[in-house]
Amino acid sequence: MINVGILGYGTVGSGVFDILRGNEKLIAERAGEEISVKHVLDLRDFPGNPVESVLTHDFKDIETDGEVQIVVETMGGLHPAYEFVKACLEQGKSVCTSNKALVADFGPELIQIAKDRNASFLFEASVGGGIPIIRPLQSSLSPDDILEISGILNGTTNYILTEMREKGADFDSVLKDAQALGYAEADPTADVEGHDACRKIAILTSLAYGKNVDFHEIYTEGITKITDRDIAYADKMGGKVKICGSSKKVGERVSAMVAPVIIYPDNPLYSVDGVFNAILVKGNMVGDVMFYGQGAGKLATASAVVSDVMEAGKNIGTGVPVQWTAERLSLVPLKESKSRFFVRMAGTKDENEGKVQDAFGEVEAVDAGFSDEYAFVTGEMSEAAYEEAVQAVGAVINKIRIS
Amino acid sequence: MINVGILGYGTVGSGVFDILRGNEKLIAERAGEEISVKHVLDLRDFPGNPVESVLTHDFKDIETDGEVQIVVETMGGLHPAYEFVKACLEQGKSVCTSNKALVADFGPELIQIAKDRNASFLFEASVGGGIPIIRPLQSSLSPDDILEISGILNGTTNYILTEMREKGADFDSVLKDAQALGYAEADPTADVEGHDACRKIAILTSLAYGKNVDFHEIYTEGITKITDRDIAYADKMGGKVKICGSSKKVGERVSAMVAPVIIYPDNPLYSVDGVFNAILVKGNMVGDVMFYGQGAGKLATASAVVSDVMEAGKNIGTGVPVQWTAERLSLVPLKESKSRFFVRMAGTKDENEGKVQDAFGEVEAVDAGFSDEYAFVTGEMSEAAYEEAVQAVGAVINKIRIS
Repeated sequence: MINVGILGYGTVGSGVFDILRGNEKLIAERAGEEISVKHVLDLRDFPGNPVESVLTHDFKDIETDGEVQIVVETMGGLHPAYEFVKACLEQGKSVCTSNKALVADFGPELIQIAKDRNASFLFEASVGGGIPIIRPLQSSLSPDDILEISGILNGTTNYILTEMREKGADFDSVLKDAQALGYAEADPTADVEGHDACRKIAILTSLAYGKNVDFHEIYTEGITKITDRDIAYADKMGGKVKICGSSKKVGERVSAMVAPVIIYPDNPLYSVDGVFNAILVKGNMVGDVMFYGQGAGKLATASAVVSDVMEAGKNIGTGVPVQWTAERLSLVPLKESKSRFFVRMAGTKDENEGKVQDAFGEVEAVDAGFSDEYAFVTGEMSEAAYEEAVQAVGAVINKIRIS
Repeated sequence: MINVGILGYGTVGSGVFDILRGNEKLIAERAGEEISVKHVLDLRDFPGNPVESVLTHDFKDIETDGEVQIVVETMGGLHPAYEFVKACLEQGKSVCTSNKALVADFGPELIQIAKDRNASFLFEASVGGGIPIIRPLQSSLSPDDILEISGILNGTTNYILTEMREKGADFDSVLKDAQALGYAEADPTADVEGHDACRKIAILTSLAYGKNVDFHEIYTEGITKITDRDIAYADKMGGKVKICGSSKKVGERVSAMVAPVIIYPDNPLYSVDGVFNAILVKGNMVGDVMFYGQGAGKLATASAVVSDVMEAGKNIGTGVPVQWTAERLSLVPLKESKSRFFVRMAGTKDENEGKVQDAFGEVEAVDAGFSDEYAFVTGEMSEAAYEEAVQAVGAVINKIRIS
């Protein structure tokens, strides 16, 4: 029998508890051993809830219990999650977490501690909720040199952009609806500014290359400036506006970014709408593979945590190797990053066409029926060259990169 | 160092050879050990080809070489692949294969032999080419009770149906084009009649429930009867015709089938076009997850084989457990299987409407502008009830199930 302690009985933690109880027999069969929740740590009380009999308010009950071999961390936040996880790993316990902030900030250190103790530090649920991506990236795609990863990594923003497109509504009103439906948090900053997606693409990129990406170095742009006009233009161009986290191998360096992009139907991410997430991985041998599913949600995310618990359980005493060292992965500076740009400028075509051509060279004009502005798509150029050209033509209303 | 023998230097076998050489350094790093091809068995000679130095015409060279720990079987066909694989496993060697016929026919027996020798029998490449599906189904989704699997499992037929829709062309002419492009074989029977997809859904279903599905028991219908009119009707209904392999849990039994179906845009398989494959899995906790990629192709398929080789290599002496026993999985008989049906009958609406309503009850008529026939969609009914109703109304031109 494997004994589990759960840190935090919130949405995901209670989901883990429910799955370990609800699919108990099936899990025991497949894991080859019974998996039992011995302690759940939470500061709150849950009178009448089945968790009551195993509830504790004291972390020491889990840390010092030699019978607890696996600890699930679903508290969220950096502190005290970091201290608790580190303490458990140092006791030789394996830890499975859904906490992307913890993994993005302290991944290599915690992986190393686990390795030194022949324990596991696993975090399938930290990216893509229930979508299997961490383990496939580490095992199924291990023969491949990963050329590119791009993903719709945040369900809240994908939902907002999908609704804006389908209902012709503006950002603020869709955000309010999303908050009412529970798809967006009261403080939506981490989602709408791209911070959540940034940590996720940092984790995926670190795993793909085995070296550490500091997520602070990844250029991150949210969706708060996207308007209904941007979406109308994208529609006119046959595309959709999506916010993607992406990383791309460029020689020995990697170019990474989180930003709204216009994508076309030939990209499998094009049809990923609503709260769904998907991650597209391009390998030098396997070509494009995509993983799709619910990027959040209590039971979906908890299912990913439980799959880690089962994996850790099968590898008690040896640990599951994770290839992600503290060595720094070199990122391409933003100004060298290249793409095509969709650009909107105030003023008519006649007022702008000439100076745009002087600054950007040949561009494709896009007419979505707004006579008070001039919109166009550039050829491929670096961010630095784009900024320089913009200086020459004057302020733009908005720009969106093209995927 | 791990020594590998490859049985068969055809498309996939030479791809495995190329990847093990081309990504050699990266593979050694990730596998923690060098992986080297010691023998390649093929009856042909390859003068001037890099394989020449390790080529053998005699299976015994591999079977009796104690240094060969892993054998790759990429010969295809049942015999002598079965005898060779069995002999290698009995020697305690692990075997990785891309041969779906072998796996569908002899899976449980070969898995058991491997288990008895603490070796591995792995077959990621047998379904979905380079798409990671077998391992995610066995590990990432292991906390879940699998409720449903449905997949576009054959690239040739998906290409044909996509071209028929996009070009308004008929089956025969698209098949000829596909053959010219190398997307369809000279004898396309196994693809267009659904036999290939049938073996694949049998493998996935066996793995999902740990018991053996006899693929002969799965009702299988190909796409040879699909015409441009069927596709025009599907279009009119807002759907697409796809050939899907599917299985669904119904109490303690499973309902499985390979057949053309009409699917709508709310199904993630809807946007899987051309030669791409995708597998949608519904778990009781994780909800819908989908795996998408190239279902065939030399390097994509070979990449999946090499991922198995690396996995087998990490588990020398213990073997990778695969949950699929010889115990028979009970399938729901076809006549009890339920769906909605799209049905086309010769004759006008006036000639048919009354008798159709008498036989099928309320139906939705579909008008795609063909005045010489009457088409409609039934409510959900069993195959037996459908057959009975058809007896009452007379022969139909075609029917397609609705997903």
